[in-house]
Amino acid sequence: MSTDPLTPEGGTPDAGVPAPALPAGHPLRTGDTARSTAASPLIRALRGQQPSRRPVWFMRQAGRSLPEYKKVREGVGMLESCLMPELVREITLQPVRRHDVDAAIFFSDIVVPLKLAGVDVEIQPGVGPVLGAPVRTARDAAALPDLEDSALDVIREAVAATVAELGDRPLIGFAGAPFTLAAYMVEGRPSRDHFGPRRMMHGDPQAWAALAGWAARVSGQFLRAQLEAGASAAQLFDSWAGSLSADDYLEHVQAHSAAALAHVGDMAGPGVPGGAPLLHFGTGTGDFLHHMRDAGASAVGVDHRLTLAEADRRLRANPGADGRGAVPLQGNVDPALLAAPWPVLEAHVRGVVASGAAAPGHVVNLAHGVPPETDPDVLTRVVELVHSIPATPGGRA
Amino acid sequence: MSTDPLTPEGGTPDAGVPAPALPAGHPLRTGDTARSTAASPLIRALRGQQPSRRPVWFMRQAGRSLPEYKKVREGVGMLESCLMPELVREITLQPVRRHDVDAAIFFSDIVVPLKLAGVDVEIQPGVGPVLGAPVRTARDAAALPDLEDSALDVIREAVAATVAELGDRPLIGFAGAPFTLAAYMVEGRPSRDHFGPRRMMHGDPQAWAALAGWAARVSGQFLRAQLEAGASAAQLFDSWAGSLSADDYLEHVQAHSAAALAHVGDMAGPGVPGGAPLLHFGTGTGDFLHHMRDAGASAVGVDHRLTLAEADRRLRANPGADGRGAVPLQGNVDPALLAAPWPVLEAHVRGVVASGAAAPGHVVNLAHGVPPETDPDVLTRVVELVHSIPATPGGRA
Repeated sequence: MSTDPLTPEGGTPDAGVPAPALPAGHPLRTGDTARSTAASPLIRALRGQQPSRRPVWFMRQAGRSLPEYKKVREGVGMLESCLMPELVREITLQPVRRHDVDAAIFFSDIVVPLKLAGVDVEIQPGVGPVLGAPVRTARDAAALPDLEDSALDVIREAVAATVAELGDRPLIGFAGAPFTLAAYMVEGRPSRDHFGPRRMMHGDPQAWAALAGWAARVSGQFLRAQLEAGASAAQLFDSWAGSLSADDYLEHVQAHSAAALAHVGDMAGPGVPGGAPLLHFGTGTGDFLHHMRDAGASAVGVDHRLTLAEADRRLRANPGADGRGAVPLQGNVDPALLAAPWPVLEAHVRGVVASGAAAPGHVVNLAHGVPPETDPDVLTRVVELVHSIPATPGGRA
Repeated sequence: MSTDPLTPEGGTPDAGVPAPALPAGHPLRTGDTARSTAASPLIRALRGQQPSRRPVWFMRQAGRSLPEYKKVREGVGMLESCLMPELVREITLQPVRRHDVDAAIFFSDIVVPLKLAGVDVEIQPGVGPVLGAPVRTARDAAALPDLEDSALDVIREAVAATVAELGDRPLIGFAGAPFTLAAYMVEGRPSRDHFGPRRMMHGDPQAWAALAGWAARVSGQFLRAQLEAGASAAQLFDSWAGSLSADDYLEHVQAHSAAALAHVGDMAGPGVPGGAPLLHFGTGTGDFLHHMRDAGASAVGVDHRLTLAEADRRLRANPGADGRGAVPLQGNVDPALLAAPWPVLEAHVRGVVASGAAAPGHVVNLAHGVPPETDPDVLTRVVELVHSIPATPGGRA
């Protein structure tokens, strides 16, 4: 079955779905490959349709837990690797080959668009992203360079090479949410408390708006490049949003995440029937999952702190201005249990699946990224387990 | 005014309040000094009574932000300093002198009872607590040494020396909650994800029960020593509990925190009218504040992720088996804003005070510890501001 991911199954184009920005015949346009993913379990579940099997993938499945990843990354820096299309293709495909997961996640890093814009940033092993010059003032933010569209060609090339091999298995595009990006940029490096961005949003709201607005633009451009080149869905990662109150999120962050997603609003998200589903994920954000939905997400990722049934209940209890309450959910196997005895992990996975039945669609995933020390065989076994549990109909909303 | 903290104001002993464990005349018994704190703003607010002024103190007020602290700590290791009574007294008193806060918090560290029990633990500067041998199995947990009561004499001595100088200003005792202690012990060092304790509580519940039970005992003993020697209140710190779901907290943690507090249940907490109030604090625990109350807390600390009004609403909506809904709250000035322009910080503090009016009592505090880089003059100014806002009657529950 080969249908266009930008149209409902059956291939009839939706009215109002604009053509992808790249012209037909453009070497990076791979829509023909991407067309076939509409029937995939992932895309069907994210549209509230009955999938042929229960979809599962893992955040950070492409990476540190795989020996084949460590091998190909030997001697190559993290950001350097993200800008080598053939290496990105290989790393993105490795977990699909090994685990038979229902989606590939584009191998990249949230600071890649910063790097491509010319910001002085590196990823220090064992530390994380470190900036040469933290962004502390409105002047700092105003001085940030634009991200030239042509700089994203390396991303388009990597996506195109990847989807060409994926066939009807979807590639999920990837970008950091503006808050998490801005948090790194204010602090200049990873931080536990995230005082910097909270201080800026309250103490210097104009600087915050300028910085978060910039981050939203580059993340939006990054997402757009991936969707144009053939990604069938995309996920906005707001890893640090859990350091915020619901009020701060609503007042100072949501609009920027919405702006990032609006960059692809003509080809993806809940406003485009048959468009690429947009996932929105954070950790510790149980108090404002509805605000994350209302930023323009098709589906919401849930971490281990909340059962999926409770997440679903909260979303239904807080419908958005567009009338949406429940949306498909993604999650939330606790990564802490990947190293527990198998019967404990199996019972937990089955519990997650049962809890997710409340939602109008469910994609099984971890509650956070794969820990580096994870035994890959355990991940494979989790995939087999999930696939062995009959998929339930979506669309129960 | 000089009344016993273990009795209501006026000095009439409550029926059923047992005598402190130390005999009259014992050199470490300082009840006569502690008697006078019942009229203090802190104790009155924590009992839902009208305080003479609005009480405020700061978690980690004794420590890193003060130049006089850095001076007396020069060349003295962290754990070493916690076992030098005269130094502890001096450090505990420094912020009271400087800021005129309404309580002293006993200068110590959550791993002090481990050290006193003979566990191989040190605090590495810039890292935190590091154990020589992490506790990973039931056998490891069973091999943990008992904490001899006599080992706590150094703590009693430090408390007694401190309260002798505090007069009618209360000293708040201090202990780590079993989950947070056990988290350090399983991981062997600070961790961002706290996979170890979650894996153990699900994968090896007997080992978890043994370890958390041990941690509850030593924390309870540590609390008891401080209350016996003259502390007028105590706070259980569960800094990492926010890494848990409400279900995990209820099933695997609450009973251990309750056991720690039960160690002083004959002289403190909601079960002892006129007893020393017991505070219970965590970060990111907005989904289970009621479970923390029901562990036996007189009052609950709230971090910056939740307004006090919302915390109060959640507590009222989830009464405990003992019928308690709302309890006095402590918090929750965002430490991120201590470095914001003063008008922003002032408006925030006033907002916190207004939000706290919903609760039956309110003690102003930070939402987490004082950041090391804080300008101490800002803390003094916050105290002055809080004291300038007329105290409202407690007991509105």
